[in-house]
Amino acid sequence: MSAPLGAEFGLEGLPLREDLRGRSPYGAPQLDVAVRLNTNENPYPPPPELVADVAEATREAAQALHRYPDRDAVELRTALAEYLTKATGVRLAPQNLWAANGSNEILQQVLQAFGGPGRVAVGFEPSYSMHPIIAAGTRTEWLSAPRRPDFSLDADAAVALITERRPDVVFLTSPNNPTGQSIPTEDLRRLVSAAPGMVVVDEAYAEFSAQPSAVELIGSAELGGRLVVSRTMSKAFAFAGGRLGYLAAAPAVVDALQLVRLPYHLSALTQAAALASLRHADATLGSVAKLAAERDRVVESLTGMGFTVVPSDANFVLFGRFGDAATAWKSYLDRGVLIREIGIAGHLRVTIGVPEENDAFLAASKDVAATEVMR
Amino acid sequence: MSAPLGAEFGLEGLPLREDLRGRSPYGAPQLDVAVRLNTNENPYPPPPELVADVAEATREAAQALHRYPDRDAVELRTALAEYLTKATGVRLAPQNLWAANGSNEILQQVLQAFGGPGRVAVGFEPSYSMHPIIAAGTRTEWLSAPRRPDFSLDADAAVALITERRPDVVFLTSPNNPTGQSIPTEDLRRLVSAAPGMVVVDEAYAEFSAQPSAVELIGSAELGGRLVVSRTMSKAFAFAGGRLGYLAAAPAVVDALQLVRLPYHLSALTQAAALASLRHADATLGSVAKLAAERDRVVESLTGMGFTVVPSDANFVLFGRFGDAATAWKSYLDRGVLIREIGIAGHLRVTIGVPEENDAFLAASKDVAATEVMR
Repeated sequence: MSAPLGAEFGLEGLPLREDLRGRSPYGAPQLDVAVRLNTNENPYPPPPELVADVAEATREAAQALHRYPDRDAVELRTALAEYLTKATGVRLAPQNLWAANGSNEILQQVLQAFGGPGRVAVGFEPSYSMHPIIAAGTRTEWLSAPRRPDFSLDADAAVALITERRPDVVFLTSPNNPTGQSIPTEDLRRLVSAAPGMVVVDEAYAEFSAQPSAVELIGSAELGGRLVVSRTMSKAFAFAGGRLGYLAAAPAVVDALQLVRLPYHLSALTQAAALASLRHADATLGSVAKLAAERDRVVESLTGMGFTVVPSDANFVLFGRFGDAATAWKSYLDRGVLIREIGIAGHLRVTIGVPEENDAFLAASKDVAATEVMR
Repeated sequence: MSAPLGAEFGLEGLPLREDLRGRSPYGAPQLDVAVRLNTNENPYPPPPELVADVAEATREAAQALHRYPDRDAVELRTALAEYLTKATGVRLAPQNLWAANGSNEILQQVLQAFGGPGRVAVGFEPSYSMHPIIAAGTRTEWLSAPRRPDFSLDADAAVALITERRPDVVFLTSPNNPTGQSIPTEDLRRLVSAAPGMVVVDEAYAEFSAQPSAVELIGSAELGGRLVVSRTMSKAFAFAGGRLGYLAAAPAVVDALQLVRLPYHLSALTQAAALASLRHADATLGSVAKLAAERDRVVESLTGMGFTVVPSDANFVLFGRFGDAATAWKSYLDRGVLIREIGIAGHLRVTIGVPEENDAFLAASKDVAATEVMR
């Protein structure tokens, strides 16, 4: 087996942007481990009737694969509007919705339109680590603001910072990944009111939380349409492999994104499969209550073992405190349980799985608590 | 029916980037017309056995839709490497390949890594109009260089311009859209040698051309790995609805793109469907020869009617000269034939369809030639 063509040319010899040099690609290790609780996937596979419906929908779409897809994804946006209206009680129209290949692409489009060189986005960290990466990818300056030591959002401090620094884009997360807490409605309103520019509320895990969605603020006169609520079908909808992120916003925001989206960004197969999946929303979302109950069980057990557990409204739990998180992560892996090291000293994040996976995780936790240095 | 939530907020009130104000979204009108020859689609629908294979592949993939897809799309890149090796005679490895949701996303990633603020990309226009749009979307300065009046590329002038202006990225197109001409190999080598930075050769229509691919230059010591050859499955592969663009380059280029790609950008369904489609490459590519023969027939007929036709190596033809291209475009539409106005004074572009569609187009052309002002 000879080396690939051009393998002798190293990255150091290419005219890569200076700000990218030395960086590492984002992404958790994709390891073949029995119990995978590292990427906040929904552990319940799609039911057979959903698989059949997706297959039939893609078979139909495949017959016209030689044609470009609906560039505006109108049918899909209509279905998403119906789902979100039902889920939130806030009446949304297709013009309020926009969809892309995962919420990462949604956020990238938002920063291409409203961020970019000379503009500043703020996030309250630790939070979703793709936010600063997408900011860098769009050359938006990233302002990292802290959370409280217990990882909750200090609304007073956040309002003060927003008022003083006047960022062009404010990223809020409810529930926040990787810590799990939601933003109380009253705090959310204050934060949004303080923001002089665009506000993105990342609700990737909203279905797991009892907190009302921020979509009710889309019509706020004070905000004047500067709100984006981003969502995903990856988590509660168990559609991570299908890659469908979306947003709800005033129609003018959706118009703005048309200026930066790549035409035909959403394939005919993605549109068809997402539509099929939305038809099974009730069945799929049935897993949410099960996962929430399992989450509470995991929290209780971990607490009983002496771990410090951050309260979570999502399908994952942040816990610690380990003397060394990397060593503890490896201890779990050695026991056949893949969880996530997310760069928070002394902490690891575990995704809630099916009961048997959670049992395996808890059994490993008992071992780890007995063998690792805890703080 | 009430207005959508937040419909009272206009785009003018949002903090859109100044450089986007007043722009219009890219995209040809998606009209429901009998004969659609406007977006360079392959007119032949996928054969039933390909549809069945895609459906089965997506059915299998759908069973694990709750899991994230292979972030590195290794199996797909392996199949693309095999196809491109066979098609070009240049031995390529999976490490030489990268894939994304259409070649637009490929080009966006290339400019995110190697272009951006403070960097300059050059294109020889008229050419693919997404190139400057993607440059704008990544804040790469766009330098528009002219072609000859007959739309061929003046290699001497291009080499002189590259040598003088030293752009960070040079866009070459072979065949060029919307004009149809390929770049002769000798010219391509001279252009590539003159470029001080990255060179992108957009070969979206390469399967329709007898010209050798630029992939043979990937191993060129002189270039040192600074070459990207972009391709798409949208055209020859009749996979426009599936959205699969790819590139061939030195492995270091692929490494660089890992730093800017959005993780899990390529869905499990896209990967499965593209793999299935590649298994039927021989059948699908059988349409290429038919389309090339039809193209030659269309060119001959148009020439016979008195039109000026630009020589084409692709599945479309640029022709004129109309007194007013917009009026002529409308005349075709009135006759049930949707072709493309691409902003070149006096010219329109027609995609080669199935024989009956081309007959309809030629019949309409006869009418139009008799009724429109020609120059």
